[in-house]
Amino acid sequence: MAYDLYVITDRRIGRGRSHAEIARDALAGGADVIQLRDKDLPACDLLPVACEIHGITRDAGALFMVNDRIDIALASGADGVHLGQDDLPVRAARRIAPREFIIGVSVGRSADAVRAVDEGADYIALSPTFSTSSKVDAGPGHGIDTLRGICRAVSLPVIAIGGIGPENATLVIEAGAEGVAVISAVVGQEDITGAARQMKSLVTAAKNRRGNPEGPGKGPL
Amino acid sequence: MAYDLYVITDRRIGRGRSHAEIARDALAGGADVIQLRDKDLPACDLLPVACEIHGITRDAGALFMVNDRIDIALASGADGVHLGQDDLPVRAARRIAPREFIIGVSVGRSADAVRAVDEGADYIALSPTFSTSSKVDAGPGHGIDTLRGICRAVSLPVIAIGGIGPENATLVIEAGAEGVAVISAVVGQEDITGAARQMKSLVTAAKNRRGNPEGPGKGPL
Repeated sequence: MAYDLYVITDRRIGRGRSHAEIARDALAGGADVIQLRDKDLPACDLLPVACEIHGITRDAGALFMVNDRIDIALASGADGVHLGQDDLPVRAARRIAPREFIIGVSVGRSADAVRAVDEGADYIALSPTFSTSSKVDAGPGHGIDTLRGICRAVSLPVIAIGGIGPENATLVIEAGAEGVAVISAVVGQEDITGAARQMKSLVTAAKNRRGNPEGPGKGPL
Repeated sequence: MAYDLYVITDRRIGRGRSHAEIARDALAGGADVIQLRDKDLPACDLLPVACEIHGITRDAGALFMVNDRIDIALASGADGVHLGQDDLPVRAARRIAPREFIIGVSVGRSADAVRAVDEGADYIALSPTFSTSSKVDAGPGHGIDTLRGICRAVSLPVIAIGGIGPENATLVIEAGAEGVAVISAVVGQEDITGAARQMKSLVTAAKNRRGNPEGPGKGPL
């Protein structure tokens, strides 16, 4: 499972583009994961959107996650659900989901990350890693040291979310994150595909350097 | 499955009593079904409430339904979920629920009732049967003739919900309803148990008369 570039669809900052349009454009730029997040649509309207994005991500070979609503995730055939601290607890979600269903969870502290691992999460998102205006209730950023601490504390993939853009994508990968989750930096841009491509190449380059810290030609033979 | 008296917990009109207190008192008065409805609590807070009510209803031999959130219903061990027209469609809910899980659905027209049957619903609620102030977005009452039409149109149990009280409980049972769902008439009363007991006895008496329309001593030998 690649979590390098994880794009969260958000109609409110999407410049009038639909969830499906956002997903398609982000995938064209190399997104590995699409998360559908919409706190406003009732379930009856969210489900067809989820079903549409499920088809789009499947065709692209990407992962499809639904924010919060595990019922929508299960009914639409999504790969998993992303849970916040106010959503269904990981343990409860695990109980009602099939074995291969992916459960991600947002945490703000190492202790929550360790608990999420115990409860059966598949990945952890430090949220918000930096301060963000995309999610009004997100609170202040936890910072790069907290990210580094969580990456050391748990063996699961850790994704940095909140305030991530081209200016700090390299930094969070160097701190140990497995990927970056973005809203504004991709969804809020005029050229979603171009913005996704730039973010993806920054992440890929940083991960390559991490795997081979002495640079090209200096690794073990 | 008895649906004679179906009590929907609602903290907002419950005079400060908790969902669990409301459920316990209503069951003591003979409620057959408890539905947990809370549109305000986040999932992480709703789940423990649901788990508590699950224990209370199980001990009482009553059914436990959760409004809207099938994830909370499944995770708490509830008997089923009650879906509105804006919630997950019945067909989608059926897909992710175990076979024995009960799915009820609110409808406003015979056509919706027939569709709900096709999609796999276990019971139908005509909502609102009469005008109600308990549910601000419920719209005007559909009336007794619509109720009668739906009872004729579908073979599933039909429950009357919305504006039901001691003054019209007999009427809706005579129209063919299998039971009455109440909020204000029970949950909003000082004495929940007494109010439930009164409603239950009205429903039981009306159903007995329906089964034996010529009165005691005049039925077939």
